[in-house]
Amino acid sequence: MTPPAQQDGRRLRGERTREAVLTAAVAMASVDGLDGLSLGRLADDLGVSKSGLFAHWRDKEELQIATVAWARKQWQANVVQPAYAQPEGVRRLFAVHEARLAFYAAGILPGGCFFAAVEPELDDHPGAVRDCLVTAKREWLGFVRTLVEEAVVLGDLVPAADPDLLTFEIEALGAGAIFHARLVDRDDALDFSRRAVLHRLRALVTDPSLLPEG
Amino acid sequence: MTPPAQQDGRRLRGERTREAVLTAAVAMASVDGLDGLSLGRLADDLGVSKSGLFAHWRDKEELQIATVAWARKQWQANVVQPAYAQPEGVRRLFAVHEARLAFYAAGILPGGCFFAAVEPELDDHPGAVRDCLVTAKREWLGFVRTLVEEAVVLGDLVPAADPDLLTFEIEALGAGAIFHARLVDRDDALDFSRRAVLHRLRALVTDPSLLPEG
Repeated sequence: MTPPAQQDGRRLRGERTREAVLTAAVAMASVDGLDGLSLGRLADDLGVSKSGLFAHWRDKEELQIATVAWARKQWQANVVQPAYAQPEGVRRLFAVHEARLAFYAAGILPGGCFFAAVEPELDDHPGAVRDCLVTAKREWLGFVRTLVEEAVVLGDLVPAADPDLLTFEIEALGAGAIFHARLVDRDDALDFSRRAVLHRLRALVTDPSLLPEG
Repeated sequence: MTPPAQQDGRRLRGERTREAVLTAAVAMASVDGLDGLSLGRLADDLGVSKSGLFAHWRDKEELQIATVAWARKQWQANVVQPAYAQPEGVRRLFAVHEARLAFYAAGILPGGCFFAAVEPELDDHPGAVRDCLVTAKREWLGFVRTLVEEAVVLGDLVPAADPDLLTFEIEALGAGAIFHARLVDRDDALDFSRRAVLHRLRALVTDPSLLPEG
């Protein structure tokens, strides 16, 4: 029998391998899409055995689903969580947009954004992977919408602000930063995206001092 | 010797085949991306011989480049041209956005938008195909920017309107319609995109009667 401590050690190493592989998979998919993922390529890149990876994911679809889940965690940690440092209302709402742009600016993923790369790839291909992307997108849009509603309830934004429309605008102007950055100009893209959302919020804010000047 | 009339007939049939194949290729790429294109699949779909297609394009890259050029022509005919029915200035600028949304709403491409599908696919892959996409995007953004500048010069938009920023916003809110439509809700997406651009232009227009009410 294997002693419990040794079992824990193995489980930990297994969990660490799993996380390292998924981090590499999110990065790879941000460049080549989810169809470009393969256990063989990941094993090569990470210098681990392919059979070891099959212990975690039986097939490509399982790996793709786990990759989407890991990208959501990464987005949560980098974009959603930092915004809670700001008080509820329009300041937190704008902080989320700034955190998103900071995540892009830091170049954490070689392709810029996992979701911007794989949503267009999968949107016409029904199945379990697309379902995960739809769930992730609805969760993200729901989160932004809640922040807008809180800002209206608190009186930071005028009552006429339309939470669904404003959520669409913030999402489109945020994703637009990636598409502009990757094909036209990276610095312009981040600057335009920030100013565009700031303009939109300034038009709806009740107290301009709640938003930055520039 | 082949008589001239017969030669013309062949050339015409050749040109017609070429256009039919490229139209199918743009539609196919709007769903599966440019990497998903193959002369074999196109030949099967159109019921023509694969060797006949090789007479037009020697390899996949040539076909991909011709497909991007054809998609630009399609965009020109469906989105750019109709706007010239409106007078120069902010009316023509908003007409371009409405023509884009009408093109999406008509479902002319099974994947919604060729460029929204293939730009994220190719943006991290340097080469001749990506170069064509960059040229197409710069041409499109340059066209929108010119319309913005004309609207400022004519006095339709306030002098403080920033042509580069407004071009970024119109492009992001237009592309956002496709991403929202394909994964969340199609009708909402077109409505939000229209209202978002209208809001943005209303904030900058000198004479509100130049823009539609709703």
